[in-house]
Amino acid sequence: MASEIPTEQWAQVIDETGGPLHYRRIPVAKPGPDEVLVNIKFSGVCHTDLHAWQGDWPLPTKMPLVGGHEGAGVVVARGELVEDVQIGDHVGIKWLNGSCLACGFCQQADEPLCPKPQLSGYTVDGTFQEYCIGKAAHVARIPKELPLDAVAPVLCAGITVYKGLKESGAQPGQWVAIVGAGGGLGSLALQYAKAMGLRTIGIDTGDAKKDMCATLGAEHFVDFAKSSNLVKDVQAATPDGLGPHAVLLVAVNERPFQQAAEYIRPRGTVVCIGMPAGAYMKAPVFETVVRMITIKGSYVGNRKDSAEALEFFARGLIKSPFQTVGLSELPSVYEKLQKGEVAGRYVLDTSK
Amino acid sequence: MASEIPTEQWAQVIDETGGPLHYRRIPVAKPGPDEVLVNIKFSGVCHTDLHAWQGDWPLPTKMPLVGGHEGAGVVVARGELVEDVQIGDHVGIKWLNGSCLACGFCQQADEPLCPKPQLSGYTVDGTFQEYCIGKAAHVARIPKELPLDAVAPVLCAGITVYKGLKESGAQPGQWVAIVGAGGGLGSLALQYAKAMGLRTIGIDTGDAKKDMCATLGAEHFVDFAKSSNLVKDVQAATPDGLGPHAVLLVAVNERPFQQAAEYIRPRGTVVCIGMPAGAYMKAPVFETVVRMITIKGSYVGNRKDSAEALEFFARGLIKSPFQTVGLSELPSVYEKLQKGEVAGRYVLDTSK
Amino acid sequence: MASEIPTEQWAQVIDETGGPLHYRRIPVAKPGPDEVLVNIKFSGVCHTDLHAWQGDWPLPTKMPLVGGHEGAGVVVARGELVEDVQIGDHVGIKWLNGSCLACGFCQQADEPLCPKPQLSGYTVDGTFQEYCIGKAAHVARIPKELPLDAVAPVLCAGITVYKGLKESGAQPGQWVAIVGAGGGLGSLALQYAKAMGLRTIGIDTGDAKKDMCATLGAEHFVDFAKSSNLVKDVQAATPDGLGPHAVLLVAVNERPFQQAAEYIRPRGTVVCIGMPAGAYMKAPVFETVVRMITIKGSYVGNRKDSAEALEFFARGLIKSPFQTVGLSELPSVYEKLQKGEVAGRYVLDTSK
Amino acid sequence: MASEIPTEQWAQVIDETGGPLHYRRIPVAKPGPDEVLVNIKFSGVCHTDLHAWQGDWPLPTKMPLVGGHEGAGVVVARGELVEDVQIGDHVGIKWLNGSCLACGFCQQADEPLCPKPQLSGYTVDGTFQEYCIGKAAHVARIPKELPLDAVAPVLCAGITVYKGLKESGAQPGQWVAIVGAGGGLGSLALQYAKAMGLRTIGIDTGDAKKDMCATLGAEHFVDFAKSSNLVKDVQAATPDGLGPHAVLLVAVNERPFQQAAEYIRPRGTVVCIGMPAGAYMKAPVFETVVRMITIKGSYVGNRKDSAEALEFFARGLIKSPFQTVGLSELPSVYEKLQKGEVAGRYVLDTSK
Repeated sequence: MASEIPTEQWAQVIDETGGPLHYRRIPVAKPGPDEVLVNIKFSGVCHTDLHAWQGDWPLPTKMPLVGGHEGAGVVVARGELVEDVQIGDHVGIKWLNGSCLACGFCQQADEPLCPKPQLSGYTVDGTFQEYCIGKAAHVARIPKELPLDAVAPVLCAGITVYKGLKESGAQPGQWVAIVGAGGGLGSLALQYAKAMGLRTIGIDTGDAKKDMCATLGAEHFVDFAKSSNLVKDVQAATPDGLGPHAVLLVAVNERPFQQAAEYIRPRGTVVCIGMPAGAYMKAPVFETVVRMITIKGSYVGNRKDSAEALEFFARGLIKSPFQTVGLSELPSVYEKLQKGEVAGRYVLDTSK
Repeated sequence: MASEIPTEQWAQVIDETGGPLHYRRIPVAKPGPDEVLVNIKFSGVCHTDLHAWQGDWPLPTKMPLVGGHEGAGVVVARGELVEDVQIGDHVGIKWLNGSCLACGFCQQADEPLCPKPQLSGYTVDGTFQEYCIGKAAHVARIPKELPLDAVAPVLCAGITVYKGLKESGAQPGQWVAIVGAGGGLGSLALQYAKAMGLRTIGIDTGDAKKDMCATLGAEHFVDFAKSSNLVKDVQAATPDGLGPHAVLLVAVNERPFQQAAEYIRPRGTVVCIGMPAGAYMKAPVFETVVRMITIKGSYVGNRKDSAEALEFFARGLIKSPFQTVGLSELPSVYEKLQKGEVAGRYVLDTSK
Repeated sequence: MASEIPTEQWAQVIDETGGPLHYRRIPVAKPGPDEVLVNIKFSGVCHTDLHAWQGDWPLPTKMPLVGGHEGAGVVVARGELVEDVQIGDHVGIKWLNGSCLACGFCQQADEPLCPKPQLSGYTVDGTFQEYCIGKAAHVARIPKELPLDAVAPVLCAGITVYKGLKESGAQPGQWVAIVGAGGGLGSLALQYAKAMGLRTIGIDTGDAKKDMCATLGAEHFVDFAKSSNLVKDVQAATPDGLGPHAVLLVAVNERPFQQAAEYIRPRGTVVCIGMPAGAYMKAPVFETVVRMITIKGSYVGNRKDSAEALEFFARGLIKSPFQTVGLSELPSVYEKLQKGEVAGRYVLDTSK
Repeated sequence: MASEIPTEQWAQVIDETGGPLHYRRIPVAKPGPDEVLVNIKFSGVCHTDLHAWQGDWPLPTKMPLVGGHEGAGVVVARGELVEDVQIGDHVGIKWLNGSCLACGFCQQADEPLCPKPQLSGYTVDGTFQEYCIGKAAHVARIPKELPLDAVAPVLCAGITVYKGLKESGAQPGQWVAIVGAGGGLGSLALQYAKAMGLRTIGIDTGDAKKDMCATLGAEHFVDFAKSSNLVKDVQAATPDGLGPHAVLLVAVNERPFQQAAEYIRPRGTVVCIGMPAGAYMKAPVFETVVRMITIKGSYVGNRKDSAEALEFFARGLIKSPFQTVGLSELPSVYEKLQKGEVAGRYVLDTSK
């Protein structure tokens, strides 16, 4: 197989934070003993890629940098210690490219909290190239019958919302409100929630989004722009009027956060998964205490969450709209993302 | 027995919010079918009693009102449905005098969240009288070998901090920081934490409080007035430098809250149990998400928590300093409470 | 309303264990302060009714006895303490007619474990009569749009299997094997499991049951009479070949029990809910330890479980086949039950 | 450092199952990329070593074999991928020498359930030699201030009982009965339980064991040889007479198992951690169901459990009596173990 692996490849590279994207030939890396080399076929583009490019998160990036962390492809080489992953296997490269697997967090299956993580397209080169390195113990296993373009966006957005729903503690039959239900993360959240036996209230604005939410299984929709009393309207959407058992904030800003703490059912959990720069969560102490409300942050899924999220997708329960363009066209995708013009996910074909 | 129950008794009564306390004779109530009449021997005095008097919480009180919700005494009469509680039993009247026992919250053992609660000394007459009514299913069972004066403060303060520690999810061997460790709630929290196998960091100020915390089992003390970097100092108090697994905020204001979210270990839980008027909790979204932090409010314990908290006390593991004065002297106790001059708890002897 | 309640009614009564059923007129009881009187419209008939009649369980019954514990009807009177239940409400009388609501088990929402329970049709008169007493805090709330005949069997069989699925700890997306999937409890279990996001393997025998299981959502069926290696076949039904995460034993005898401990996935849970007389569970210690298997018994649901199970039914997700006959025809139903000739549930119309 | 590592060393080797132990010179192995080489200073001797020697467990061993899985020593070499473990660090080699860290069980922190484990002294060479290989991610970290002889037995026996106590779900303040409390595992279990805030009932026989249990914190002792009704006596040892919340079976045979299912509190958990050859657990179905009892197997701890168990030891809360002999004397230790003549643990000094 080694003869098929080229020594050079096409990649999208930035040489400095905020600088221009260069579509150029770079060397293909060799996997270390515990790594695999993956021929990336398709890679999703995520808002986090913009943060990596702009450097506006409180966490430094590698430079020069190949971005991307939603890559789906085929294993073409592997290190001497790798046993379970075979040449030819289909795998995904995720945001968490690798972790130490030995620290207290890795020991308790919280590898996203590992203090020494490798982050794809951030602290190590990512999936905006033809051949990408991944830690063998961390690559996501993708069944061969799944299309590699459609599965790419699930590797980040899908796993993240699935994890958030698990962290919410909501049980089958209970209600979850999705704030930002009409967006990319939100529409995935509605589908995962339904597959998990949860009942959903979509919160967003506009009739198009309302219709989409209904199609994806939301039993109620509250239009935050039309509602004169959002808190009452959300609570009224649950049969007993006590509000949802959980809230998933995928489009956080400070205002929705405070409202969530008001309309959530006593003993309920507000899960925050979006990360707008500089935002604060805020809630009144008295109501939080006497209503025993929980507010928590949920980051990306661990490897187990990832495998589970992919299994729901493999069963055909999750649809994620996307459109495909060539890797070379990444700059125009970034431009659209910055303008907020992207509906659904862009997926890059690395062969173009 | 009925012949021993007088028709009139001494009580401390307020006739209007914020008005004067009247130490006067009022009728003794008769228990309903599911109630008991308790001859209160001793009653603790809590800050909440001041809130009931001042009416500065967003929840209206009964008027005229007999305050008090830390009452320990002897059952002298009971309704026809009461089977388990016997005349002569020692019992405690708590903040949650009764609840419906039928709603969704009562059904899941969250009776403090019952939407139709009876609150002692707030929505029903409390323990600042010689004879108090309590719902039989809600009175706390007190073993006869326990002194009724010493146990009184446990009925509110002890149960509340014990509940908070349970809600924190901290496991034996893990670290809990107690913010306000040197105060009344804090000193109880240190003792409960130790009895539960937890390791504690006291956070407060002054050498007297430092010494007291050490005596009560705190392995570290951080003086917030002397520390130049509280976050670092608290984290350094844990062997691996990652910070405590849980934080109990018994003296909340906005500043300690934000610090707690910073020094807590990833995946840790900040529990808020104090309720200063008008206060807000606030935490940065980015760190809350990527560190997967949980922030939650904990109210009073349910009946099970109460029984457990009393059992720890009965085993001699919890000491709560108190001083006793007559029921007639309540006005001077209120005065001291308002001035912040009370160290430990005041307990009223209803016979004086 | 009181004028509408007759003083006498029709009931099916036994005067001695194992003795004949008498369809006769008996007095209508008056509700105590915390009770309601329910005009039973329909009552399901359960195998447990046979046990009550035959007296072959290690628990004595009241005598003379009116059996039945799956009664659906309308509240016609209530005691002075009852607030939440209104005259005219539709409610269900369940196996657990009442409990003390004060003991340690009731305090932790395990009221089925209350040491002083009232058991409908066993230690108190049940639903094989026109007017039945129920503890107000325990009657199940039935939405008025639901048909009272169809909901009756859910009150015991439905709640019990739902509880068992909850106790299994299986999470959405995981696999549960239902042993006895083609029977009454089993077919309900398949439907509840699907509604909870679980994937199911039906274990039973015969093509008719195989087809029914497929219709009810089972993704695999293993015919225990045709399989030459049941353990392997059940494990092979899960994608990774490691076996189901949980097993629900609704038709227990010793052989299926041991097999379940063999084919279940490591860390999995075997839940036993059937109760054949004199049966023993048995499992090899070595495999139980090194595979960390859990085996547990699950009894009837608590009030919260009951409300949840009814909600799934109210959403139209659970179908329970039944046929209706008059209350007067109970003896012939018992006869068929004893002969094992009943497919689906019999429901009695108390007006006939 | 490499110059200090000899090429040959002393080891205790068996060449065939059940054959003689040979104390001879064998080569020192070289660590792979993800491994460390540990200069074992002391190694405990466990009953499992006898099973490895005799081959009476349903799991084949490597041959020739160096036994031992309680080794404490100093890291002298490490592979190229190892970052966190330093040369000179003190570490422990446990039963689970390594696991794949990639399968579904490793992903959920259940690495003892990994289907491809390396087992020290069983499927890979163990600690009855001077230099032993361990997977870097699996070696236990031992603080340098701890004595390596005393800590050795904790690496298996201590971790195993601590894990069992965690699996029991017993909460601080609750009661745990330890069956076999006077033995090696039992005496460790009593100490761990106390450190975790649990209350204990020792079950064993003889006054010497009774006294030892009292010294180690047991509040009650039931002598199974003297008790005429063990079930009643164990239940009576808990204040409310309902029996312990959990039972830890460290000396299992079928009889104690059935008794445990009888005296345990409803909703309680019986944890089985001993593994006598060919033994079966057995419990009556009716009582298991109506009392909602859980029975589960607990194997060795994962890496997190191990770190926690060592931390309790490091705090001085756990004492494990042992006596030290030279590695060369292993045959006589095996002889004593087989005769049941060992009180406390034997620890081998590999330098002798």
